[in-house]
Amino acid sequence: MTAAIAETASAEPILLREDEGGIATLTLNRPKARNALSVALMAELQAAITAIAEDDSVKAVVLAANGPAFCAGHDLKEIRANPGRAFYEGLFQLCSNLMLAITRLPKPVIARVHGMATAAGCQLVATCDLAVAVEGARFATPGVNIGLFCSTPMVALTRNVGRKQAMEMLLTGRPITADEAMAAGLVNAVVPDEAELDRRIAALAGTIAAKSPLTLAIGKEAFYRQLDMPLADAYAYASDVMTTNMLAHDAEEGIDAFLEKREPKWTGE
Amino acid sequence: MTAAIAETASAEPILLREDEGGIATLTLNRPKARNALSVALMAELQAAITAIAEDDSVKAVVLAANGPAFCAGHDLKEIRANPGRAFYEGLFQLCSNLMLAITRLPKPVIARVHGMATAAGCQLVATCDLAVAVEGARFATPGVNIGLFCSTPMVALTRNVGRKQAMEMLLTGRPITADEAMAAGLVNAVVPDEAELDRRIAALAGTIAAKSPLTLAIGKEAFYRQLDMPLADAYAYASDVMTTNMLAHDAEEGIDAFLEKREPKWTGE
Amino acid sequence: MTAAIAETASAEPILLREDEGGIATLTLNRPKARNALSVALMAELQAAITAIAEDDSVKAVVLAANGPAFCAGHDLKEIRANPGRAFYEGLFQLCSNLMLAITRLPKPVIARVHGMATAAGCQLVATCDLAVAVEGARFATPGVNIGLFCSTPMVALTRNVGRKQAMEMLLTGRPITADEAMAAGLVNAVVPDEAELDRRIAALAGTIAAKSPLTLAIGKEAFYRQLDMPLADAYAYASDVMTTNMLAHDAEEGIDAFLEKREPKWTGE
Repeated sequence: MTAAIAETASAEPILLREDEGGIATLTLNRPKARNALSVALMAELQAAITAIAEDDSVKAVVLAANGPAFCAGHDLKEIRANPGRAFYEGLFQLCSNLMLAITRLPKPVIARVHGMATAAGCQLVATCDLAVAVEGARFATPGVNIGLFCSTPMVALTRNVGRKQAMEMLLTGRPITADEAMAAGLVNAVVPDEAELDRRIAALAGTIAAKSPLTLAIGKEAFYRQLDMPLADAYAYASDVMTTNMLAHDAEEGIDAFLEKREPKWTGE
Repeated sequence: MTAAIAETASAEPILLREDEGGIATLTLNRPKARNALSVALMAELQAAITAIAEDDSVKAVVLAANGPAFCAGHDLKEIRANPGRAFYEGLFQLCSNLMLAITRLPKPVIARVHGMATAAGCQLVATCDLAVAVEGARFATPGVNIGLFCSTPMVALTRNVGRKQAMEMLLTGRPITADEAMAAGLVNAVVPDEAELDRRIAALAGTIAAKSPLTLAIGKEAFYRQLDMPLADAYAYASDVMTTNMLAHDAEEGIDAFLEKREPKWTGE
Repeated sequence: MTAAIAETASAEPILLREDEGGIATLTLNRPKARNALSVALMAELQAAITAIAEDDSVKAVVLAANGPAFCAGHDLKEIRANPGRAFYEGLFQLCSNLMLAITRLPKPVIARVHGMATAAGCQLVATCDLAVAVEGARFATPGVNIGLFCSTPMVALTRNVGRKQAMEMLLTGRPITADEAMAAGLVNAVVPDEAELDRRIAALAGTIAAKSPLTLAIGKEAFYRQLDMPLADAYAYASDVMTTNMLAHDAEEGIDAFLEKREPKWTGE
């Protein structure tokens, strides 16, 4: 993994983290490589998410990117420099574990999307809990064009987008526009420019960061777990979750504040 | 459960039932409480659905509401008056069983939505087989605002609406408009005013009530069961259902009537 | 199965196949019967798909239809001429196996839709990997009108379209327009006339036929398999698929061609 070590040794960090008002912003910072997910960058992202999971000061996470592209997917030069099953297996497991870590992180993650989000970059957007895109953003799963079907991006994509549209993206590699991504369910909103993108992301993250972090953690975990269950099992599980949630201080406080028409004070317990 | 008993003892029934032309209309009737789903109201709804399941005169069900709101979700005053695990467990099981009873009722259920449909009220809309809303209707899962994530409403919501949009509703608590609900798949149609809402509901319920009740019962059960199966299992199951359906008198009669260009006469057998 | 034999013995073949440029076009050719899926026609389709699965010259498949309708579903006259459980069971198994064969065919299948696509005809559209429709096309699951709920079509329909809209189609039998089908996710594109339909289908099939057939086969199989898995299992499976895909010659060639800014040469290995 010479490339990763070389890059880690370079002056510029490949992942930036900035915290403000309970919101941690992680910024992919390999602009010249269109933020390709090298082994080093995925390891940095995984480490940042692990750290944030334990960090009580963080209520919500924004995933952003520097340079002209959001993320170009895997680092093809690195892949061709390391041929063989062992590297490939490690690479795709690292990537899949990173995506699962975002899903399992007990804090909401919002993608701030500009430019191209391609292959594993499109997968990142699909994997985040929420996503807002600027009008010029484009989304593609073009692995088919290089003989490598976007099979892992597909896992996230098909859990956001209808089958026919997902299949078209995967079989043709054609990029879709931000408006098409919105209509398809891949992003929550499309805004006209990057200034508005920053405002919208700040508003959304701020709204979420003002909620009880305990409630967010309970809810996000339950969201993804119940989706994989048959209906009756999902209800049995979610009923248990509701009971546990009701017994927490923040629910009692929240309901009392609502009935007394005052602002709640969350303790996160 | 003092609140429930007190309310049952009051003059005005909290759930109304009106039958006409094979259509049973159930109307939530706690307008001052914005039709909050108290234990008593959920028990009444459950009883009404159990009765309708056995009632051959009913071909379709409309779920409507009196007052300014469709349904505000659980009764927060009742919840705070009955703290403790035992009450909470009973409450959420009662609610989940009610939702499952609507899904398992062998007759189609149509939600007639006006005003706010909030939390378990939004869940009711998502759980009904069909829903029509008037333009001013609003849909929200705002439990996060009171520290109690809408985990059981989420089970129904995420089975109607894409992940990104469902997650946004759940994490922010923001209400969506009727048009947004339509685009998201939560309702079948949006109409401009309540007179048109009544006409549209009557037309839809009337169309369905004219079908063979046996065919409707077979189809509705199969709809939800096959959704929880892998593809090949779903086909094996649905093929069996089709064969059973073909052996029924109503299918023979329906096909003969179609080939002879006449109206079919259903016997429900 | 007298009807099938009689029809097979008639002058005109009931299924046409035309190959050009790696694209096999299968055309339903029972125009007077609105291309109803008789036992004979389903057997022909099944045989054609089995043959194409083994045919290395075919990269993509187009499913089209002659006459005013795309496909009217099952052949009701044949069904009524062969009453009894044995025929029905065989019929619905044949149909379900045909649909699974399209899903399992290791080459993309594109529906070219004009006119009515009804019941099992609508199911064919839903089952194809991609679909393009002309503006006048209509889609319906009207079995409920003849006492025979579209339970097997529902398996495919509900895997393309949201629950509320699918349920409305199934309970009312109402046809939806091509634009409604597009908004619902049942088709990929709607074009104004049949000349444009031919151009669009040729462009889409041509784009796909230019990809590596090995990559398409790997991706299509993985697409449907991972959809039936919980998230973590889907990632473990898809990671394995990616590794296998990377070890194929076509992926190495594709990545090298991309990095060297030249066209790739696929060997299908």
